Amino acid sequence: MPTPLMIGLAGLGTVGGGMLKLLDTNRALIERRAGRPIRVVAVSARDRHRARDVDLSPYQWTDDAAALAARDDLGAVVELIGGADGPALVIARETLGRGTPLITANKAMLAHHGMELAALAEARGAALKYEAAVAGGVPVIKALREGAAANRVARVQGILNGTCNYILSAMESEGVSFDRALAAAQGRGFAEADPSFDVDGTDAAHKLAILAALAFGTRLDFGAVRIEGIRRVTAADISEAAALGYRVRLVGQAEAGPVGLFQRVAPCLVPLGHPLAHATGATNAVAVEGSHLGRLLLQGAGAGEGPTASAVVADLIDVARGEAGPAFAMPSDQLAVLAAADAGARRGRAYLRFTVADRPGVLAEITAATRDAGVSIASLIQRGAGPDGAVTLVMVTHAGEERCVADALRRLAGSAGLLKEPMLMRILGE
Amino acid sequence: MPTPLMIGLAGLGTVGGGMLKLLDTNRALIERRAGRPIRVVAVSARDRHRARDVDLSPYQWTDDAAALAARDDLGAVVELIGGADGPALVIARETLGRGTPLITANKAMLAHHGMELAALAEARGAALKYEAAVAGGVPVIKALREGAAANRVARVQGILNGTCNYILSAMESEGVSFDRALAAAQGRGFAEADPSFDVDGTDAAHKLAILAALAFGTRLDFGAVRIEGIRRVTAADISEAAALGYRVRLVGQAEAGPVGLFQRVAPCLVPLGHPLAHATGATNAVAVEGSHLGRLLLQGAGAGEGPTASAVVADLIDVARGEAGPAFAMPSDQLAVLAAADAGARRGRAYLRFTVADRPGVLAEITAATRDAGVSIASLIQRGAGPDGAVTLVMVTHAGEERCVADALRRLAGSAGLLKEPMLMRILGE
Repeated sequence: MPTPLMIGLAGLGTVGGGMLKLLDTNRALIERRAGRPIRVVAVSARDRHRARDVDLSPYQWTDDAAALAARDDLGAVVELIGGADGPALVIARETLGRGTPLITANKAMLAHHGMELAALAEARGAALKYEAAVAGGVPVIKALREGAAANRVARVQGILNGTCNYILSAMESEGVSFDRALAAAQGRGFAEADPSFDVDGTDAAHKLAILAALAFGTRLDFGAVRIEGIRRVTAADISEAAALGYRVRLVGQAEAGPVGLFQRVAPCLVPLGHPLAHATGATNAVAVEGSHLGRLLLQGAGAGEGPTASAVVADLIDVARGEAGPAFAMPSDQLAVLAAADAGARRGRAYLRFTVADRPGVLAEITAATRDAGVSIASLIQRGAGPDGAVTLVMVTHAGEERCVADALRRLAGSAGLLKEPMLMRILGE
Repeated sequence: MPTPLMIGLAGLGTVGGGMLKLLDTNRALIERRAGRPIRVVAVSARDRHRARDVDLSPYQWTDDAAALAARDDLGAVVELIGGADGPALVIARETLGRGTPLITANKAMLAHHGMELAALAEARGAALKYEAAVAGGVPVIKALREGAAANRVARVQGILNGTCNYILSAMESEGVSFDRALAAAQGRGFAEADPSFDVDGTDAAHKLAILAALAFGTRLDFGAVRIEGIRRVTAADISEAAALGYRVRLVGQAEAGPVGLFQRVAPCLVPLGHPLAHATGATNAVAVEGSHLGRLLLQGAGAGEGPTASAVVADLIDVARGEAGPAFAMPSDQLAVLAAADAGARRGRAYLRFTVADRPGVLAEITAATRDAGVSIASLIQRGAGPDGAVTLVMVTHAGEERCVADALRRLAGSAGLLKEPMLMRILGE
């Protein structure tokens, strides 16, 4: 009988409970694939007495998660507490510092402290694994770290936040406002009571920074991610985009090249010929452009008890099988340091929506500003004034440098003709 | 300086040459990810003097591929000769028999001899890796073997042959016949001069049998795959399907359940809401339904020099990193033996196309046969007679057992009213 992998689990929320259930439900299969039993020895959570749909009696309870990590009978610690700092980080440092493998779903912690933790893991010869941190059940970390390992990756694009995708999909299919779609998402458990972390793009940005480091072999640089959320997307934006043959998606996009590392999370217009256009509802999807493999798409459930637990246990199986390579596919001191690339030099098409007063001269003012900024207009749609007297003007540009569009908007800032701040979304290529 | 992984390469066709070029182009990146240099020591191919776009002078030439496999200075042998038997199998047995890791792209050999080779690899403690054998650059083997390892998989569906998908996509976008689309595919290098292996479904069936074994933890059983090719799909089938909201795709589908193992490759109608509907051209795509991860889609380039070489080198990097688990994710003697499931009991909707004589009574004969067989008709379209006097009748059934449709077709066999053999395609659920 092979030696079991003894594990400690810190965090008994949805994913922690899901992991215990999954290990139980698929025990025989998991043991065959892991080559040995995986046994949860000890668990820890904030509140021992909270009602949970999983029986904790088989496990030793530890009130102090750090004490759990300090046990010397564990072959791995699973951290599912969450949060960039606080107890999660204490446990991660303690676990890896002792040379014990750490499995975590904590994208915030990795985005902020991933380089420190990876270096610590390497120094102590312990695995640091985090498949569940990005895109839930979709094995995108493994695909980038190992599947695409022979490739120089030029670009990663992803729908990385299920809440935002659910809201944008609902706005599209039901023609409702952001606020109504958000309320519906909250009602169905797809959005938190305070949705800021999701809808403002922070969560997607954490994940993008992780993917970029792995894909490009560069140091993780969360601080350099430009972030725009989806609160300003209107039902009208979505229907105008649809009429033009696009879907609006919150896309995390990262590119590495001679000008540096570009990372941005922002609502974008995705053409129907692009694989990300077909991820609807709470689905996540990641498209990777490799030097040799071409464009690879991975798509699936990005959150939820089952999918996330599936990813955590995949990592456990890898650890049980002795897989212990560097967290970011190469020793962290070999990761390249790239400067943040200037977005202004990027070329692409853009969607602009202006809400303007219904009076002469406003259109001339806008078109003069775009002309003077060197923006070339591909199409322009003006809708008749609504009941509030406001006129919507939707403009799609030809491909050009982003700095030109930014310049045009700067020229129009403060114009009395603009009733609202203009909305700018970039259009993805096919 | 870590010890290099010394490799021997048998087969210098497109993929073999591509592998040498990729190792050269991305050498620094690959070494960082592999943790050590990967050095090709010796190569072998049928014809030393064939013109190749890669310089072979750095490598020792061996005329006899089996002698290459018998070298004792190799850390891995890469077999890219192809063919289920013959030299490829000789090399595979020699390599694994000596305990040397084997990397192969040879789906035919794995489909026919995978269980023998996996057992040999385990007995000798050598890795047997074959990412390039299925879906080219798409890391579907790794996703099933490791990414989805915690899941009981219920179903795998895949577009596994790029040639067929290219032909069906061209028939759809250009409205041309199978023969014309095939000729165009041959002209553009997407189909072989003798296309039987692809268009008759054998190649997809090899890949499906491999995926099924890996996904379900069952013994590989290529002989039990039911195979229908795409030669009988007409431009009319594709336009009728499109009018009904479907795309015609050659789908490999495998299911494991209490009734056994079901494996079939056949042209199917795929609804636009199904992720496989959006794989066009030579793209491959695989959808996996796991007990916990839900539905996972992987999509990308299924063939070609770059993508296939990318998969071969990913395996080399795994071997260099010491990854050496069982070929089918668990010891081969633990793979379950499932009987072939009876297709007749499967439930689903079907598309039927009849080409009939334009005379009274034929429609009554067909509808009587379907009624007597217990087939419930959801829709029926009769197109006016063409210049040849033949009438096309397209029928879509409600969900029912496949045996009923088979029974209806049996009742109609030999009918003088039918001018051609009826066309039957199953309709995938969303």
